[in-house]
Amino acid sequence: MNQVKKDKITKRTEDYSKWYLDVIHEAGLLDDSPVKGCLVMRPYGYAIWEKIQKILDLKFKETGVENAYFPLLIPKSFFEKEAKHVAGFAKECAVVTHHRLELNNDGTLIPAGQLEEPLIIRPTSETIMYSVFSRWIQSYRDLPLLINQWANIVRWEMRTRPFLRTTEFLWQEGHTVHASKQEAEDKTLQMINVYRDFAEQYLAIPVIPGVKTESEKFAGADYTTTIEAMMQDGKALQAGTSHMLGQNFAKAFDVKFLDQQGQQEYGWQTSWGLSTRVIGAIIMTHSDDNGLILPPNIAPIQIVIVPVWTNEEEKASVFALATKVAGELRDNEVSVKIDEREGRPGPKFFEWEKKGIPIRIEIGPRDVASGNLVVVRRDNSVKEFVAIDNCLAFSKRLLTEIQDNLFNRALEYRKAHTYNVNSWDEFKAKLEQEDCFLMSHWCGSAECEEKIKEETKATSRCIPFDQKQEIGKCVYCGNKSEKRIIFAKAY
Amino acid sequence: MNQVKKDKITKRTEDYSKWYLDVIHEAGLLDDSPVKGCLVMRPYGYAIWEKIQKILDLKFKETGVENAYFPLLIPKSFFEKEAKHVAGFAKECAVVTHHRLELNNDGTLIPAGQLEEPLIIRPTSETIMYSVFSRWIQSYRDLPLLINQWANIVRWEMRTRPFLRTTEFLWQEGHTVHASKQEAEDKTLQMINVYRDFAEQYLAIPVIPGVKTESEKFAGADYTTTIEAMMQDGKALQAGTSHMLGQNFAKAFDVKFLDQQGQQEYGWQTSWGLSTRVIGAIIMTHSDDNGLILPPNIAPIQIVIVPVWTNEEEKASVFALATKVAGELRDNEVSVKIDEREGRPGPKFFEWEKKGIPIRIEIGPRDVASGNLVVVRRDNSVKEFVAIDNCLAFSKRLLTEIQDNLFNRALEYRKAHTYNVNSWDEFKAKLEQEDCFLMSHWCGSAECEEKIKEETKATSRCIPFDQKQEIGKCVYCGNKSEKRIIFAKAY
Repeated sequence: MNQVKKDKITKRTEDYSKWYLDVIHEAGLLDDSPVKGCLVMRPYGYAIWEKIQKILDLKFKETGVENAYFPLLIPKSFFEKEAKHVAGFAKECAVVTHHRLELNNDGTLIPAGQLEEPLIIRPTSETIMYSVFSRWIQSYRDLPLLINQWANIVRWEMRTRPFLRTTEFLWQEGHTVHASKQEAEDKTLQMINVYRDFAEQYLAIPVIPGVKTESEKFAGADYTTTIEAMMQDGKALQAGTSHMLGQNFAKAFDVKFLDQQGQQEYGWQTSWGLSTRVIGAIIMTHSDDNGLILPPNIAPIQIVIVPVWTNEEEKASVFALATKVAGELRDNEVSVKIDEREGRPGPKFFEWEKKGIPIRIEIGPRDVASGNLVVVRRDNSVKEFVAIDNCLAFSKRLLTEIQDNLFNRALEYRKAHTYNVNSWDEFKAKLEQEDCFLMSHWCGSAECEEKIKEETKATSRCIPFDQKQEIGKCVYCGNKSEKRIIFAKAY
Repeated sequence: MNQVKKDKITKRTEDYSKWYLDVIHEAGLLDDSPVKGCLVMRPYGYAIWEKIQKILDLKFKETGVENAYFPLLIPKSFFEKEAKHVAGFAKECAVVTHHRLELNNDGTLIPAGQLEEPLIIRPTSETIMYSVFSRWIQSYRDLPLLINQWANIVRWEMRTRPFLRTTEFLWQEGHTVHASKQEAEDKTLQMINVYRDFAEQYLAIPVIPGVKTESEKFAGADYTTTIEAMMQDGKALQAGTSHMLGQNFAKAFDVKFLDQQGQQEYGWQTSWGLSTRVIGAIIMTHSDDNGLILPPNIAPIQIVIVPVWTNEEEKASVFALATKVAGELRDNEVSVKIDEREGRPGPKFFEWEKKGIPIRIEIGPRDVASGNLVVVRRDNSVKEFVAIDNCLAFSKRLLTEIQDNLFNRALEYRKAHTYNVNSWDEFKAKLEQEDCFLMSHWCGSAECEEKIKEETKATSRCIPFDQKQEIGKCVYCGNKSEKRIIFAKAY
């Protein structure tokens, strides 16, 4: 058997960061690469991203969005056009300055062919896309323009963390242009809701949709909407954002159209993105000290069947039954893998557990004889004997149950670690006790926000859309506040 | 209506290169970008690539291949490890030298943060992948390793041509490691046959599979297999390649395994790739002076329904019928679009013709009354009246017919422009008459190959696998030859 041993995963209570890295390593999701901050997505990790792509792509297309592809390299001057964008955003990025390698006498290569204008590897594509959109759009009849791109992105991060913050990562970025402000605002909201439904229904991650503050919004946007999730350590993770860009980029890149009255107007724009970072969110929301736990709706393999045998005769009957059960499940759109390898069952069980497969079915000679199978849930380790004839129906129901259980467990966790706080003392005290979400009144000033961050390391996550009307006092300065905002330490 | 007019497409006989660019532009496949040699794939062009991806990805997975993702950026030193690879390959590429932009007082940005070691944007991924494979592979039990990656690639091309040769392009690259030479050779062949089947069955492009000469092989490979297609101007286009890498890269990157006898051995490797360049091949194989022609098996839209009406009453009944017909086709896995726009039908017909939709169905008030529809083929412009009840069966059959017709037409064309030549005079004379495939005996020396290229601009395309045994004389030097090889001018 293929070097499977029960490698230790650090306990969460011992070292949460180490636990996170161990889970990723033991599940075989990522590998280190020789390039600082860049990662190798191993087949199992990439398979999760492929499922995410497939589901989201369909959801986007249902809203009328079409895919396209724009250049990886962006002229430096493009970043100089939108002043806020450049100041807030285009800082740490990969700069291409040469277009050739020349072979030296000693066999080494030297950069040659210096470019007149340096090119930047896209840290996001607003600038390059909108310079092209300006040619595509002439009149209101060309609107709305609804484009999405699946692409790789490079942002030169000093401190990296697998999935959450890496120099290169994969994402999708949607970019739309509309004839009116209202339409663009509706689209901004529609897409954050697409992300919310996706996170909740597929990733089983409860999220809080809301608006970012001025300090935390995307540089160049009028405002940014976000979905915020709570990880098992009480920290927040931003899982997707949708930006109302207003006419800011349209003015910088001349995205104009003739309206129905024959007047030239600038387009109203949105952009929205979700990245491989959500895989980090899946891990930190659901997994346990035994390794990864994947929600059935996003698991590349939903059920693993592990045949158990001690001689060739047993093997034949056990494999025959495994194949029959797998076939029936596959015919009903369940993704199944049979572990056909030689070797003892114990290490196999541990391996599939670490890979987070939602259900394990064990089939041994006694099962063939008795007509019962052993079915084990990954989420709570419950083991049941199930009649072979009932296996399909039972498994299908169990997949739904596991999906629901993971969502509810995460929601309960978040509720248990979210506090309404009404004074600065309370705010600080809670945060000293534990990392958590603090629903606090806030006056809206960047100064208070900054002070809170300085004093507690908690940042503003979002002003939730869904909250009851309530007049209160800013938790920091005591001035009048009309909304609560979430503060938390964040990834 | 959206600016649709019958824009002129240059005739092929007038200017073939201009015709090619016009077809791409008028079909809305690509757009220019502000970055030299980089292109924007518009939604319709990208939709073709998405279909290619979907079909090929399934074919790869059926052979046991798994997808993964490796870093975009490769340390310069990696290219210095495989001597032939660096000499023959890693020349014109994008070099990243800085990781930051700093804002100047005048609002411009300056590259800063120079990297210790320059990074190269992948021109292909052998080096970065194999440095990681060396960690993944310990023993024969870890083999075969079968990996594919869908990715963007940058090669700094001086002369670019849309789809065929661009600075950035999209492709897939497969990379496999095997325990024996035989297995790697089998895989090399298996994958070139996957490409061949794909090209012939989906793209309707007849191709000739064969082996490249030493001069034309991939730098670092033992040998390269290829599929070569003939374009409508008689020039050759390489549509996909599969390389037997032997142990060359394995030795450079230490890809070793313990064999069943407990001995350390280097892995036997293959790599194989197919890119967006095949979209150029589709265009140049099938299209005509009226624009793009897409084979049904690769067309994002297989049938367009254009309703025709003059008043609201007519519109209602015509749209009702269009919706019914479209629904029936969609239920039978035909991809259909109804052109719901206002405006005269003429410009719409021209637009869909330029976009190469295989079948156009026209539905007007007279059709509603008579129970017949007008069905028009894109490949030969034949128009037929079809009873509504028969529309589904007729259309399905017609899609198959069009697919077959396109393939056979291209095959006839290739046969009519392929010549067995047996002397140097004949060789030169043929090539002066027309661009064509010249099946010529060749002694195997790089010198003759080079001379032929110098004197005629024809390059060796491949030694076809499928040829009868025959002893002949090299068309250039007269020495003994055991195989014919194809010479042609090429893209």
